[in-house]
Amino acid sequence: MPQLDDLVAALPPGAVVSDQAAMDGYRRDRANDPAAGVPLAVVRATCTEDVQATVRFAAAAGIPLIPRGAGSGLSGGSSAVDGAIVVSVERMRDVVVDPVVRMATVQPGALNAEVKAAAAVHGLWYPPDPSSYEFCSIGGNVATNAGGLCCVKYGVTTDYVLGMTVVLADGRAVRLGGPRLKDVAGLPLVKLFVGSEGTLGIITEVVLRLIPAQRTPTTLVASFPTLTGATQAVLDITRTMRPSMLEFMDRVAIGAVEDETRMGLDREAAALLVVQSDEPASLAAEEMAAIEACCTANAATECYVTDDPDEGEAFVAARRMAIPAVEKRGSLLLEDVGVPLPRLGDLVEGVAEIGARTGVEISVIAHAGDGNTHPLLVFDPADPASRARADVAYDEVMRLAMRLGGTITGEHGVGRLKRPWLGDYLGEDVLELNRRIKQALDPQGILNPGAVL
Amino acid sequence: MPQLDDLVAALPPGAVVSDQAAMDGYRRDRANDPAAGVPLAVVRATCTEDVQATVRFAAAAGIPLIPRGAGSGLSGGSSAVDGAIVVSVERMRDVVVDPVVRMATVQPGALNAEVKAAAAVHGLWYPPDPSSYEFCSIGGNVATNAGGLCCVKYGVTTDYVLGMTVVLADGRAVRLGGPRLKDVAGLPLVKLFVGSEGTLGIITEVVLRLIPAQRTPTTLVASFPTLTGATQAVLDITRTMRPSMLEFMDRVAIGAVEDETRMGLDREAAALLVVQSDEPASLAAEEMAAIEACCTANAATECYVTDDPDEGEAFVAARRMAIPAVEKRGSLLLEDVGVPLPRLGDLVEGVAEIGARTGVEISVIAHAGDGNTHPLLVFDPADPASRARADVAYDEVMRLAMRLGGTITGEHGVGRLKRPWLGDYLGEDVLELNRRIKQALDPQGILNPGAVL
Repeated sequence: MPQLDDLVAALPPGAVVSDQAAMDGYRRDRANDPAAGVPLAVVRATCTEDVQATVRFAAAAGIPLIPRGAGSGLSGGSSAVDGAIVVSVERMRDVVVDPVVRMATVQPGALNAEVKAAAAVHGLWYPPDPSSYEFCSIGGNVATNAGGLCCVKYGVTTDYVLGMTVVLADGRAVRLGGPRLKDVAGLPLVKLFVGSEGTLGIITEVVLRLIPAQRTPTTLVASFPTLTGATQAVLDITRTMRPSMLEFMDRVAIGAVEDETRMGLDREAAALLVVQSDEPASLAAEEMAAIEACCTANAATECYVTDDPDEGEAFVAARRMAIPAVEKRGSLLLEDVGVPLPRLGDLVEGVAEIGARTGVEISVIAHAGDGNTHPLLVFDPADPASRARADVAYDEVMRLAMRLGGTITGEHGVGRLKRPWLGDYLGEDVLELNRRIKQALDPQGILNPGAVL
Repeated sequence: MPQLDDLVAALPPGAVVSDQAAMDGYRRDRANDPAAGVPLAVVRATCTEDVQATVRFAAAAGIPLIPRGAGSGLSGGSSAVDGAIVVSVERMRDVVVDPVVRMATVQPGALNAEVKAAAAVHGLWYPPDPSSYEFCSIGGNVATNAGGLCCVKYGVTTDYVLGMTVVLADGRAVRLGGPRLKDVAGLPLVKLFVGSEGTLGIITEVVLRLIPAQRTPTTLVASFPTLTGATQAVLDITRTMRPSMLEFMDRVAIGAVEDETRMGLDREAAALLVVQSDEPASLAAEEMAAIEACCTANAATECYVTDDPDEGEAFVAARRMAIPAVEKRGSLLLEDVGVPLPRLGDLVEGVAEIGARTGVEISVIAHAGDGNTHPLLVFDPADPASRARADVAYDEVMRLAMRLGGTITGEHGVGRLKRPWLGDYLGEDVLELNRRIKQALDPQGILNPGAVL
């Protein structure tokens, strides 16, 4: 048993939590991994130096470290491991915006919404917007290279990260990149750490690029009697236009959201698209007319267009609400498979077939414009047979995505939940490349062991 | 002496060149490194398998490999090494555009301009645009994470690379990423290879993201009586707007270009800005008026605005012509330093001071909106003292950039020319991280030895 007292002494008062009850809230993320372990301690770091002291202590004793942001991860990337130290950055929340260069220097515990709000004060915008933006942290966003709804036009987290401070596996802290728009000196290490899921280092500060505030978008909501109509409309829209949002919900999701909101969504529709254009007013009208034409050409039964920002936001909020709404129907296994856009229809139809065949209720919501879908597998946690069926379907959905040339995870990360499928997806050679990088940067294997690799 | 016959037998007829005279054109890139070595052979690969056979042969014999695209590199990243095999991809030129998903699958020897042209057939655009776009290859662009003029609004090469095939140091070929807009399964290896300058693998195919064709831009040319006026105008423009191009030329560059073009540029100006807006017509007029106001507020003596695309392109071509135009005044040492935008004025003034103090004529052109400058140091190759003075100034310019929080290379890469400064720029810890990655992927050290690390 390592002398935790040494760590307590090295950190500010109250930073180390080792009470079992108090630690319970740090054992799981939103993936609710039933295999989550019991940590030795939780460190609530206040600064880079706290993280360094913790990593040095852990490295000396060979203790695993589990980096943790807001705990909103969906792939179990922050599930605790028995005997590990959970390094929580929840107290590291500073956000400093420099409007002259349009950048923000942000501590990893700051919420995505807090960064957006700080940018908005200066008429600026941090685009990446996971549906969880109000309660997910920037540290977690960077660790998973998080996506969101606006990515279809504005890209993902890595496109906005210019620099970072990261604590390495031996406790050294290094600065990579910085407030420079272009910098190619040395290997692109900033990009290597974005999406590394805490397996290569613990990020303690990031420098983010901001852009001018988004124009008020126009919103279209279209209902389709068939899945095929909706997915074909997605393809027709994306091949000719650049909407700022292009979201999909199937019948189960529509119904679950309508139960919550009573906003008048068409419960009979097989699928619904929520599309936004943020082009300047003159062009937005033109783009929306073209988007509407794509929908009606694919047999949309209803197209509703609104310029009213509050009304538009209500539809987007409805889409964001889909996961918690469906969650009321049982426990969820949340998928994150993505395919090349022309295969979106095959994926959505195939998932429905898997659900019917395995007897699992699967609702599909999707960042359709990216080909990134979230099948939501509902099961009864009290019924082992129900869980077993869901596990089978979960596997089949990933294998279907792979057969269609798609990925097992578009934006949530591999974490611990999807690790069993990573080798089949990447193949042995690429998996081995991953392992070599991991070995080079964390030879002791103490950084988030069991995640990704 | 390895049995080159074995390699000849493994490759298509004519692929292996070992005649000294024929190899001479493969010894240097545009950096004209006087230390370039004499290779053992040049392989003109026609496909991934040719590259694999070459790498396997070299790995077995411990022979260094120098990957080479179009040879337009400016940092000596493709300078030959004595006894090495130069792997030229000049014959691998296929470009296949899929307009439905807006992607291009491209072999590395295809020129940037060829990709742009193939995309344009479908109304699409591949934005990254090094000044050398007509004669630089996509392989080199990806290897150096090349920038260009439109990056100020549209980002750099890495922002457009979705996937690649890369031949590893042991001859295995792996596919990384692919035609998926979002994919976070495993470490972000695609991003690690973009900008790795041939030190981690040899890229034999890339999947590039395309976007809809750019709108016809409006162009403004403004002359300034002082450097400070011009750099302050840059800061005022970038803090409030998002031009699609924001280029800078100083008096020496203006004069050199005017000598070539006789287009009526103001030879008396201390600096000239070329600014473009590609917003829709109504907004472009507004944006241009605001840009012009930023220029006149900083004492611009002349502002000329044109909607005529040919006239606008003539000014941009004049800017692109600056390097060859200045080159007529002597040999060049071409710099690529970048700073945070608020320090652009300090950099430009400091470079002028270095030129005056060391007696070296230094002309500055810049992708000003990115803070990325190209001081051009002119020297007489026949005069050792002139070369020695230029070497001193070259060093001082990089040290100045570092003092200002800037980088030693914004878009050209480290290559062999800037390797001596990389350690001072990155610091020992980050340099060591670079070395660990290199060691993990190329333990034998045969991939582009002497470049970057």
